[in-house]
Amino acid sequence: MRSRAAVGVNGFGTIGRRVAWAASQQRDMEVVGVVKTKPDYAAMQAASAGLPLYVPGEREAEAFRRAGLEVRGALRDLLKEVDVIVDATPDGVGATYAKAYSEAGVRAIFQGGEEASVAKVSFSALCNYDEAVGKESVRVVSCNTTGLLRSICALNSAIGVKSVNAFLVRRAADLQEVKRGPVNAIVLNPARVPSHHAGDVRSVLPWLEISTAAVVVPTTLMHVHYVNVRLRGAATREEVIEALRASPRVLVVSSSRSGVESTAQLMDAARHVRPRGDIPELVVFEESVSVRGEEASFIQAVHQESIVVPENVDAIRASLGMADAEESVRATNEALGIGRLPGLAGSPSAKG
Amino acid sequence: MRSRAAVGVNGFGTIGRRVAWAASQQRDMEVVGVVKTKPDYAAMQAASAGLPLYVPGEREAEAFRRAGLEVRGALRDLLKEVDVIVDATPDGVGATYAKAYSEAGVRAIFQGGEEASVAKVSFSALCNYDEAVGKESVRVVSCNTTGLLRSICALNSAIGVKSVNAFLVRRAADLQEVKRGPVNAIVLNPARVPSHHAGDVRSVLPWLEISTAAVVVPTTLMHVHYVNVRLRGAATREEVIEALRASPRVLVVSSSRSGVESTAQLMDAARHVRPRGDIPELVVFEESVSVRGEEASFIQAVHQESIVVPENVDAIRASLGMADAEESVRATNEALGIGRLPGLAGSPSAKG
Repeated sequence: MRSRAAVGVNGFGTIGRRVAWAASQQRDMEVVGVVKTKPDYAAMQAASAGLPLYVPGEREAEAFRRAGLEVRGALRDLLKEVDVIVDATPDGVGATYAKAYSEAGVRAIFQGGEEASVAKVSFSALCNYDEAVGKESVRVVSCNTTGLLRSICALNSAIGVKSVNAFLVRRAADLQEVKRGPVNAIVLNPARVPSHHAGDVRSVLPWLEISTAAVVVPTTLMHVHYVNVRLRGAATREEVIEALRASPRVLVVSSSRSGVESTAQLMDAARHVRPRGDIPELVVFEESVSVRGEEASFIQAVHQESIVVPENVDAIRASLGMADAEESVRATNEALGIGRLPGLAGSPSAKG
Repeated sequence: MRSRAAVGVNGFGTIGRRVAWAASQQRDMEVVGVVKTKPDYAAMQAASAGLPLYVPGEREAEAFRRAGLEVRGALRDLLKEVDVIVDATPDGVGATYAKAYSEAGVRAIFQGGEEASVAKVSFSALCNYDEAVGKESVRVVSCNTTGLLRSICALNSAIGVKSVNAFLVRRAADLQEVKRGPVNAIVLNPARVPSHHAGDVRSVLPWLEISTAAVVVPTTLMHVHYVNVRLRGAATREEVIEALRASPRVLVVSSSRSGVESTAQLMDAARHVRPRGDIPELVVFEESVSVRGEEASFIQAVHQESIVVPENVDAIRASLGMADAEESVRATNEALGIGRLPGLAGSPSAKG
């Protein structure tokens, strides 16, 4: 390995673009290429940002050349240049590349759209970093699952968690996905309980008793979860809030102090101070936190486009054995400005 | 006047926040304070960015102090410190402040939500900058009107325009406006022709024959206009495109090269490369440009949150007599990066 990890990114959509950027912000990583299928505006922006462009196979290269974009090679060429490849291809497509990654002898980071069996371990940095250390393949769980694991593991380390029941209100599409619906319905997702999220949480915390249900609503602006947690013993509301606030990837937002009572206002606040308007932190609404004996409930919001981005960065470090959990989370957070969001942070002076 | 113009901003919502930021990016301006009504997340972000906070009157100050935010004074105090105040208060509210601005002896820049009579001149930088030079009050026309004037004046200077007929598909609300509708209807706005936009365009170009009609649709992502222009003589499609492309505040975007066929993709492209994901340029879709004899038609998109921002900056310079039109537009564009948008600009290599 070089002094900096050589990172490739296969797929340059919602997640791939952000992971490529996030990795390029790390002192111990270098992004040596991204794989793009079509020479569209995202490809042009990659070129404009100086990211070397690769294509899946020679077949796609011609369209790039016609568009005036330089192609460095095919995916197989990129795999010779990297220590680790982050697969950010569409759901289920990553699995079709698993063999190529493995045969090239590079570490592979998959996303939560793949089955858990695609990788040696499913991953959430603040839950099970150590299990991913040195693994040849790691699967970062999906955005909703990452959001659930953020609050569950924060409460589990501070207080202890017995069981969880959560209701997920999912965004319908990402901003640029103009062909996905619904535009005017609440869709059961799926029309049975549990949703797949319970099993996905257990791919990281196999001991946890958990049930989840989900609906899809017509918005592009974040998911919202209503989470009920049975704790291992009684706690006060203040202890629960403090446990969440102490997590390095949770923002506890006071609606009464910030005036924020919607995902729209969260996104608006973020875009005035953050690259792309991203909120990689899990947001917990402070006034929604309710505790009665051993039972805590609260409303949380998940920015589906960015919450897994720091997790991918940490998964790279874990798989390559570059740092321990605390070092990696701290380095990732510092490089990406995670934990500081003026106007939303706990302190009323907006510096909290 | 100091070496740099002292700028105040009254109102810190969609437009006020952006104008305060844009003015702070100019070498010849200094933002000495912003007026905010409530101590919400936007106020905290202003404080966090080092912008001195003022309140409309002493009544509001107490809530800010309780929130831990320092208040420098009331609007009347800010007016003693500035050469020019940009009024970005809600529609119709600006007029109630006009007398206070005038009595304080400061230049006042109003927004298009006010009646044209609020100011000495209605303004669009590339149409009538000179008419605003030295004026004690200037009204920057609304976002839709600014969009119409951008393409009309570009075609008028290059080719000549006789008349215009335009259909406006308006966004329902800005991102953070969670109380505005509709969520599932196309609303005639108004249910008669012409809409007020025709008159508003004529507040800048009184000689123009123009009719407009408008509907509101459930989106927060830009307005879209279908514009029909009768030219003063026949032109080729290439001449029309070149006239639009030559304007320093128009982006001609090729859908076939960029893959962009929606406002969602425009906004997605912008947020990866622009502060707040703003597009202050008027966007004209290249493949939509159709010309037959003296009649040209095309589809254009207007980012309602930012298109008037550079206009406000130019209005400041015009009213204070700080620069001529060409100098001001160039300085504003350079400071804000207007005209360069990787992935959307004309050149397929994204550097055009």
